[in-house]
Amino acid sequence: MPRQTQIGLMSHAELVTEHETQHANYATLRTEKLTLDLTRGKPSPEQLDLSAELLSLPGAGDFRDGTGTDCRNYGGLHGLPELRAIFGELLGIPVDNLIAGNNASLELMHDVIAYAMLYGTPESKQRWAAEPTLKFLCPSPGYDRHFTITEALGFEMIPIPMNHDGPDTHAIAALVADDPQIKGLWAVPNYSNPTGVVFSEDVARELVSMPTAAQDFRLFWDNAYAVHPLTDTAAPVIDVLGLAAAAGNPNRPIVFASTSKITFAGSGVSFLGASTANLDWYLGHASKKSIGPDKINQLRHLRFFGDADGVRAHMQKHRAILEPKFALVLRILEDRLGASKVASWTEPKGGYFISLDVLEGTAARVIALAKDAGIALTAAGSAFPYRNDPEDKNIRIAPSFPKEAELAKAMDGLATCVLLAATEKLLDK
Amino acid sequence: MPRQTQIGLMSHAELVTEHETQHANYATLRTEKLTLDLTRGKPSPEQLDLSAELLSLPGAGDFRDGTGTDCRNYGGLHGLPELRAIFGELLGIPVDNLIAGNNASLELMHDVIAYAMLYGTPESKQRWAAEPTLKFLCPSPGYDRHFTITEALGFEMIPIPMNHDGPDTHAIAALVADDPQIKGLWAVPNYSNPTGVVFSEDVARELVSMPTAAQDFRLFWDNAYAVHPLTDTAAPVIDVLGLAAAAGNPNRPIVFASTSKITFAGSGVSFLGASTANLDWYLGHASKKSIGPDKINQLRHLRFFGDADGVRAHMQKHRAILEPKFALVLRILEDRLGASKVASWTEPKGGYFISLDVLEGTAARVIALAKDAGIALTAAGSAFPYRNDPEDKNIRIAPSFPKEAELAKAMDGLATCVLLAATEKLLDK
Repeated sequence: MPRQTQIGLMSHAELVTEHETQHANYATLRTEKLTLDLTRGKPSPEQLDLSAELLSLPGAGDFRDGTGTDCRNYGGLHGLPELRAIFGELLGIPVDNLIAGNNASLELMHDVIAYAMLYGTPESKQRWAAEPTLKFLCPSPGYDRHFTITEALGFEMIPIPMNHDGPDTHAIAALVADDPQIKGLWAVPNYSNPTGVVFSEDVARELVSMPTAAQDFRLFWDNAYAVHPLTDTAAPVIDVLGLAAAAGNPNRPIVFASTSKITFAGSGVSFLGASTANLDWYLGHASKKSIGPDKINQLRHLRFFGDADGVRAHMQKHRAILEPKFALVLRILEDRLGASKVASWTEPKGGYFISLDVLEGTAARVIALAKDAGIALTAAGSAFPYRNDPEDKNIRIAPSFPKEAELAKAMDGLATCVLLAATEKLLDK
Repeated sequence: MPRQTQIGLMSHAELVTEHETQHANYATLRTEKLTLDLTRGKPSPEQLDLSAELLSLPGAGDFRDGTGTDCRNYGGLHGLPELRAIFGELLGIPVDNLIAGNNASLELMHDVIAYAMLYGTPESKQRWAAEPTLKFLCPSPGYDRHFTITEALGFEMIPIPMNHDGPDTHAIAALVADDPQIKGLWAVPNYSNPTGVVFSEDVARELVSMPTAAQDFRLFWDNAYAVHPLTDTAAPVIDVLGLAAAAGNPNRPIVFASTSKITFAGSGVSFLGASTANLDWYLGHASKKSIGPDKINQLRHLRFFGDADGVRAHMQKHRAILEPKFALVLRILEDRLGASKVASWTEPKGGYFISLDVLEGTAARVIALAKDAGIALTAAGSAFPYRNDPEDKNIRIAPSFPKEAELAKAMDGLATCVLLAATEKLLDK
């Protein structure tokens, strides 16, 4: 009988041997004194180079958009119509329902919640800050920065399981039907962070249609990866505003997007799409704090892209850089962990992340081992509300930033940590 | 005896004649069908042209600051150290106590209050939103956009008289000593909007030293015109953070500034200066909504200015454009209204505005007359909390945007409206 490679089925003696092997591998790994980083979904310098032209755009004498607006001066809270038209086409949103902002869509999300806290939404009976308790639904694993906003503002965050086609709508429907304190749901519909899940149109339709006890319930539809496929077939962009209007809940969804992972991560343009009533509400409050977004940066992006096809062509260049990195990660995971059966992982068709599930109860240990070996991973539990991964098994891998040689080293080291932690656990060490 | 020109001393017959004259002048004015705008402190296209280089900066291949940071990517909530050093020198603030943000210092002011509302300040016993009432001190006439923020958030706004050297500190001290609901004061220390008043160091010292019943009282020190003199002698920049620290109230002032009226009004860089405790507090909350400001735009400004002297030299070019416009306005006011004694006005040494006081009870009428003649002025009362000018006499004049010929026409027309409204009032029409 051949030696067992499926760790869960090993005899005690085999497990001891496997543990010794991985312990030795880990000792070797530590001697390499690596400093590698898989923490954040940051574009690599090579990806940023794709937008090098932006460094000298819009160029001498070019400061008026197609409507004749002098983009250098104050004003224009909606942002440039031509740029909004491009992203309206890509996001499936009429230009009148889409506004363009500064460099962070996270800021737009934060501000929508902050305005609801301070003033209430158009449907609110009182400002949210005056309510005794506030709750928010958090499909998990999900995006840590989403959860950070609702945690900071004191929302009770309720985890929602993620299915292959989006968050569990049965669980959501049962919760929101009776609890008026549940005010919203975080969602990343295309290539979710970190699972890569693409929401189906059925799930979207249910989310905008289901009865909610809170008349001011909001769907935070963060379409951060709308144009970020890693295969030839891009996931469709769902017309969530149209579906919501058809369902009689036009104000429920608010769509967010940005060019942070299209051009320069720190110097892009953000977008907010919503019903006319929501936009009027949002801009009414936004007008108190700003005379308008950076229109020259919007003009710069308009000149760079030209049109929606320009964005699509540009994203193919990103894909050409990202696809081999994702393939590399998946290959190493399969090579090092496939037979062991102590881990499973997603094979995303787009977006920025691979979600790795290790043996239950070992994710924190894996991350600590990796850290000691110079491989930085997002903190344990990051993809869950309150950083609490109930099964202590999820690790988010961000393959975009490191070079391929570094990525290979980091993944190989990570695999060693996964196996070492698994044998430790099973040996009850 | 010569015919009287001082309107208040005219006989009834003289007044009737004067009214007929101005009525005829006004009728002529209306036939000109003007469309002129003196409403907002917007830089003129000629001023914006001074920063034309920014349209192609930082330039091909230039994306790292002096510390080696790739400004294209995420991160760096404080903003670029080199740019902060330049404005730290100009604002008299150590670089470690100054951060650089996006394109609107108004947003920084709004967010400081919003964070205090949602979370409380470091000294607050509870978040401001939980307090039964909130009050704010508003030196008046003042900046309408300041007042709009505190009005929107439900503060009771208390007007404070402006003296020649700043707001009336005796009135302020008497109010803040006993009322813990008074949470802050708006201030524009250099070339106040709209009065042009420059705060004296004594006033600044009193403001940061006086006992306040609210332990979390904040001075919103909006130094929007710190480097905007219109004469050879620039008003000194007061070290308000140093004075506050010396007085034992290091967290009281928060300094704001921006390049909105230095480079491009809509595409500049904003600054926030404060004690370390305040900065930690601010950045702790700001980190929830953004991964950092637009660092490429900061690099662009760094390359454009080079150093603090670069900013000073650049501001002399603005002065060369603005000074003749201010002189023109003052000359027309003197020519048309000087002898009448129905109006008085400021002669600012810097900044963006001239504050005109007309005959009590006629400002709204003057603004309505001007509007009907095609001359747009800021709405009556704008420089006061709740847009309520108790004496109905203040009109803010913004000379920067129109060309000189247009400015002359607008001012001449405005003078006619002032005289017509005054004679109407005195004749009880």
